[in-house]
Amino acid sequence: MQLAKVVGTVVATRKESSLDGLKFLVVHPLDETGKPTGGQVVAADAVGVGPDEVVLIAAGSSARQTEATNNRPVDAVIMAIVDAWDVGDRTQYKK
Amino acid sequence: MQLAKVVGTVVATRKESSLDGLKFLVVHPLDETGKPTGGQVVAADAVGVGPDEVVLIAAGSSARQTEATNNRPVDAVIMAIVDAWDVGDRTQYKK
Amino acid sequence: MQLAKVVGTVVATRKESSLDGLKFLVVHPLDETGKPTGGQVVAADAVGVGPDEVVLIAAGSSARQTEATNNRPVDAVIMAIVDAWDVGDRTQYKK
Amino acid sequence: MQLAKVVGTVVATRKESSLDGLKFLVVHPLDETGKPTGGQVVAADAVGVGPDEVVLIAAGSSARQTEATNNRPVDAVIMAIVDAWDVGDRTQYKK
Amino acid sequence: MQLAKVVGTVVATRKESSLDGLKFLVVHPLDETGKPTGGQVVAADAVGVGPDEVVLIAAGSSARQTEATNNRPVDAVIMAIVDAWDVGDRTQYKK
Repeated sequence: MQLAKVVGTVVATRKESSLDGLKFLVVHPLDETGKPTGGQVVAADAVGVGPDEVVLIAAGSSARQTEATNNRPVDAVIMAIVDAWDVGDRTQYKK
Repeated sequence: MQLAKVVGTVVATRKESSLDGLKFLVVHPLDETGKPTGGQVVAADAVGVGPDEVVLIAAGSSARQTEATNNRPVDAVIMAIVDAWDVGDRTQYKK
Repeated sequence: MQLAKVVGTVVATRKESSLDGLKFLVVHPLDETGKPTGGQVVAADAVGVGPDEVVLIAAGSSARQTEATNNRPVDAVIMAIVDAWDVGDRTQYKK
Repeated sequence: MQLAKVVGTVVATRKESSLDGLKFLVVHPLDETGKPTGGQVVAADAVGVGPDEVVLIAAGSSARQTEATNNRPVDAVIMAIVDAWDVGDRTQYKK
Repeated sequence: MQLAKVVGTVVATRKESSLDGLKFLVVHPLDETGKPTGGQVVAADAVGVGPDEVVLIAAGSSARQTEATNNRPVDAVIMAIVDAWDVGDRTQYKK
């Protein structure tokens, strides 16, 4: 999984019908210092997150293993909201 | 998923027979400023898009979770046409 | 999928038995100008291609969705031979 | 699989319910000299590891092939703790 | 698939139980000139290879499509030993 920050939203009305009701969010993966790294990813929201939250995203077929995304053409999902992220003795992030 | 722009087409008559009738489009993923990033991808069209449209693509096994691509050897699919894409308070793209 | 050019062959007699009879080709993905990009890939041939042809390759589990590769340990397949590839108004390649 | 070192932890209380009880660890892949390479990954722990241990991680759908992760939205798993890692005649790591 | 050279071994006694008996080898992918490229990968051995051999590796879910790796948390497998590898008219490698 990747640690990521929720940075935006995508709205699409014309789409594969199985995607109706699913919320698409723009997230940016974070590096070990908490800075955005690599490119943005659009992920389905399986847990109900708000803007700027730090989350975990799962990619690939594993992104379909939630109630919201099962059997849908979705390759990235937000499946957890991060409360705390520690590296060694240092607290990297705390909600 | 990735945000991408439709930039071209690929025609192939000799192919695995299950691919008959499927439309292959060349798309270019977009970065957070809306500029093309990384390399081109060829994606199957599951929603009926036109040239230059901004779309969402799903990759991997998830690309087979549409009616058009089910059980076919396809690893990228256009499964939504983007109406609006917002990052923070900024509208990055509006159709 | 990726556009790629067939550049070579790999012969392997000692292998997982389910691979008997399958042809392995070395292909090189192409960028938007038709030049080789990234590294070489070895792909199974599901359509019967010749040297130097421009093809489409599918990767991951989708590479197993052809009659030739079904249930086999193959993560890349040539599933179509490209007749024409257009980007905008320009013909990038024509067989 | 990738060789990786356990460097941290992630705690998340709000998540897909199937993830309850699963431990998420921050790991850093190692290069051939044993130095961290590329970016951090968050992996589920299927074997019970401690901080700073050298482990093997499996990614993608294979990350769901353990008792702890079966059918869960998890795309990386620690499935082994490394005792010894040899490259040619050299012992790269010994627990 | 990727062409790769076997460069080392990994021993792990504490692991997911389904992995018992499986041999883990360190391999290094090769570029089109036969030089190591990118980072090392740990792959399960499905065919019985020796040190320094040139092999084919399959990744992702396809790595589980061998008798040795079926249903196991393994994301890379050596599924063939290369006898000959030709690029155009040139023999890149011959066992």
